[in-house]
Amino acid sequence: MALPPNISETEFASALNEFVSAVGSDWVFSSDEDVDLYRDSYSILWGEEDERVASAAVAPANVEEVQQIVRIANRYRIPLYPISTGRNLTYGGSSPTLSGSVIVDLKRMNRILEVDDKRNFALVEPGVSYFDLYNHITERGLKVMLDIPDPGWGSPVGNSLDHGLGYTSASFRDHFATHCGMEVVTPDGEIIRTGMGALPGSDSWQDYPYGAGPSVDGLFAQSNFGIVTKMGFSLMPLPEAYLSGRVSVPNYQDLIPLIEEVNYLEDSSLIGLPRYSSPLGGGFRGLPPALASLMENGWPSTEQIENFVRSQDLPAWSVNLQFYGPEETIRGSWEAAKRRFSSSIAGAVFEEGELLTLPIPPEDEANITGKTRFGIPSLEIFTMVGRNPRTAANPADGHADLFIIIPRTPQANWESARVFAETYRELGLNPTTSPFSTPSTLTPRTFARVAVVPTWRDPERNRNSREIFSRLIDRSAEHGWGSYRTAPAFQDQVISKYSYNDSSLLRFQEKLKDGIDPNGIISPGRYGIWPANMRNNRG
Amino acid sequence: MALPPNISETEFASALNEFVSAVGSDWVFSSDEDVDLYRDSYSILWGEEDERVASAAVAPANVEEVQQIVRIANRYRIPLYPISTGRNLTYGGSSPTLSGSVIVDLKRMNRILEVDDKRNFALVEPGVSYFDLYNHITERGLKVMLDIPDPGWGSPVGNSLDHGLGYTSASFRDHFATHCGMEVVTPDGEIIRTGMGALPGSDSWQDYPYGAGPSVDGLFAQSNFGIVTKMGFSLMPLPEAYLSGRVSVPNYQDLIPLIEEVNYLEDSSLIGLPRYSSPLGGGFRGLPPALASLMENGWPSTEQIENFVRSQDLPAWSVNLQFYGPEETIRGSWEAAKRRFSSSIAGAVFEEGELLTLPIPPEDEANITGKTRFGIPSLEIFTMVGRNPRTAANPADGHADLFIIIPRTPQANWESARVFAETYRELGLNPTTSPFSTPSTLTPRTFARVAVVPTWRDPERNRNSREIFSRLIDRSAEHGWGSYRTAPAFQDQVISKYSYNDSSLLRFQEKLKDGIDPNGIISPGRYGIWPANMRNNRG
Repeated sequence: MALPPNISETEFASALNEFVSAVGSDWVFSSDEDVDLYRDSYSILWGEEDERVASAAVAPANVEEVQQIVRIANRYRIPLYPISTGRNLTYGGSSPTLSGSVIVDLKRMNRILEVDDKRNFALVEPGVSYFDLYNHITERGLKVMLDIPDPGWGSPVGNSLDHGLGYTSASFRDHFATHCGMEVVTPDGEIIRTGMGALPGSDSWQDYPYGAGPSVDGLFAQSNFGIVTKMGFSLMPLPEAYLSGRVSVPNYQDLIPLIEEVNYLEDSSLIGLPRYSSPLGGGFRGLPPALASLMENGWPSTEQIENFVRSQDLPAWSVNLQFYGPEETIRGSWEAAKRRFSSSIAGAVFEEGELLTLPIPPEDEANITGKTRFGIPSLEIFTMVGRNPRTAANPADGHADLFIIIPRTPQANWESARVFAETYRELGLNPTTSPFSTPSTLTPRTFARVAVVPTWRDPERNRNSREIFSRLIDRSAEHGWGSYRTAPAFQDQVISKYSYNDSSLLRFQEKLKDGIDPNGIISPGRYGIWPANMRNNRG
Repeated sequence: MALPPNISETEFASALNEFVSAVGSDWVFSSDEDVDLYRDSYSILWGEEDERVASAAVAPANVEEVQQIVRIANRYRIPLYPISTGRNLTYGGSSPTLSGSVIVDLKRMNRILEVDDKRNFALVEPGVSYFDLYNHITERGLKVMLDIPDPGWGSPVGNSLDHGLGYTSASFRDHFATHCGMEVVTPDGEIIRTGMGALPGSDSWQDYPYGAGPSVDGLFAQSNFGIVTKMGFSLMPLPEAYLSGRVSVPNYQDLIPLIEEVNYLEDSSLIGLPRYSSPLGGGFRGLPPALASLMENGWPSTEQIENFVRSQDLPAWSVNLQFYGPEETIRGSWEAAKRRFSSSIAGAVFEEGELLTLPIPPEDEANITGKTRFGIPSLEIFTMVGRNPRTAANPADGHADLFIIIPRTPQANWESARVFAETYRELGLNPTTSPFSTPSTLTPRTFARVAVVPTWRDPERNRNSREIFSRLIDRSAEHGWGSYRTAPAFQDQVISKYSYNDSSLLRFQEKLKDGIDPNGIISPGRYGIWPANMRNNRG
């Protein structure tokens, strides 16, 4: 059994007894087989000395029990690591940043406190999953639509606090940006409510985010400033209809005006998530042979690429546009989009999808692929071929996702694809990117370059995975690109790249941390923020 | 001349000399006539002992000079009060919260560092005004549209940091929510850059707000955690066209479905700012005689009100809808809106406005009223009759705006109008609200109840103004409603209403403040946050 750092077995046993007094013996987990369940099954450090493992877990039923846990932890100087549903796969799952931490498992705090479809908001506890919230909404016929991540068993609270992303319109895809109001147990065991929640009797907690004075909410995301016990979210009213349309363009360099037009449509709230693709590019399963041969002698020139395009008799690029709203509006927007693309790109070709009335009837849900488009939670990602390394012919045990923010330009898309390919080659690996790689568009107003690196129950193979993952972080930073989210194994490295002015932002965050958590008991080391007494832990 | 608290004249003279060394003698202001210019010309405390007045002002040219000023202030323990353009009228103008503070006037830092109309963002310094930014955009023909407050001489940075609001679509009206990335001089004189700005060489500073780890940006709004020296903003792409449409409904209680439908349209991003009005209600200049007589014996019953409506032969309510986008889209959205209103409100009547192509040609700008609809900065608010107490027959010297957040429901609209009317009556004043009062809709997803209280150069009349202002804050809080923004004279009172759990949010903010500003030199007392050594100052 792991122990918290600098805590003796006797002290720990005494602390566990206090946790039992706080939450009952059924809800304190300290046997090896119980604690094993909190290991990160996708860990890139699986079975190694550095794997991040908990010492115990404790599952409070309500906010008062969370307060008691925090006060006990302060007395014993025991690090806590709160999780919501613990499904943060590829980003650490339910395992802590610091080995020996006690997991505060919030799964029992799973009340849906309010869903309002006149003012379009929800208020939930951390243990509520997207499935729970979706079922609540559909059972009551509420006229709102969720924006959800893959897969649907995660928690809206946990996902938002990890800066998670979804699949509908830019106004709702950034889940933290849609939050409105929090209840938090601070490291001293006090309860705060942010925004209008601080005003007793307020009925605007989920309507207006700031209250009066500074907003502290941002401090609780990707961090260790408190334990969030309630969180509100702005919801999208249920759109009347959905229409998709595909735009395809003939030439390699048509990506330049294509991106410019799509940026216009998206920033004008005329479309939901745009999905770029190239009929010539490769997906997760590697590059098509013709393309692999084009890349044999390194990155090809623009002329070579344009020649290749002409030889293939396929469009160079496509983008799938999605429209949500009344039929009158979205048919109008699709007409406007076609007009704009036609005027800026010679040879643009359009293909209209089916118009669907929302909500999707329950009996049709099973036949819909891409359920995230309609906010329907599922686990389909685990079986979508080409979207998940566990669906490969020789499936990995898990994967670590590197998600690098790049500017929303064709130049950054191409440059990042080239840098990723060259980094793979440096290590003697086959590149997974090509001149026809397209960006991830989940983050509003930026692109991302993504690498899905397999992880294993085999330390030898994981060593190779860590090498490429870590080198991609380094090479990206050399080009001004940073990761927005990562597993504990890479958090110190990722944060070290945000180094402006001798890492002054991190040093500022550390001062804030020291002011509110002098004993350093909440999630030490999370996203590079170590408490004063562990600052030498930094990797 | 005012002095900073606990600073002798000799010490202050020595500090001023150091400021001169930092920024040059032309940019340190300490004569009475210079310092007088920083008085709040709308002050509700004008000429009284409690009026908040500065001891001096210093105007740095760049961020390095800001750092020097902060370091000098730390050595002398002199409170600083940063302002951007100092135009925060009705909310304190350029005057400090604590008398004796030295104003850090950022007007010289007025560079527009970048405006990008492909990715739709801007990066500006605090001294840039909305006029400056608008001129920059129009001179270059950039295809973006600003969202601006009244009037146009304010600063995008300052307005956002005060949680200021605008007039276009919900995605852009909350100016702080549209910010992306900051540069800040922290109270120890360090420079931090937030989000992707912390990653050297990043070109995504204005695209992705969070970077990795917690977001500290919210701490710098309505507060005293640092001096913001650069700030980025997401911009709206220039819409192709604009259409307005008016919906009028016959009965008093039709407001219920009217608000429900408008909430739907707005949260679906189908419309810009909706403006409610009632042909039967009063504006700033008081209630029409028939309505005043209806209210003579207190708040009328719903039956009396419906009878009154029937006697007047006018619609009870109207709402003006605004559509921005391609003509195909906005004509479709207006059709959809009419269909939805017709199906939920019997007798709804529609009136279509003119379709305008954007941008408004410069030669037509002068003839456009409501320039804020098109992001065109002006000073028209100062002469708009009925929108400003300085345009009244007997004009006030200034005004203090009370802006109370209420839920976005017809019930809260009516209840807050009644509470405001009763509060005026308690003090023997004529009410300014009636059953036909409509809400302010500037804040996305909430309503606000607004009182525009006149201020004077006459202490006696200001005493009455303070009495009604303060009592409205109290009565509002009793109903769960709080102010989102207020002048220094009322900040302690407003913040005292956000009192959940013995003001635990404020106590948490104070711990953060103590951790980063131990000498308490940045804007002591702003929005109720006093440094440790002045915590007994609280009003």
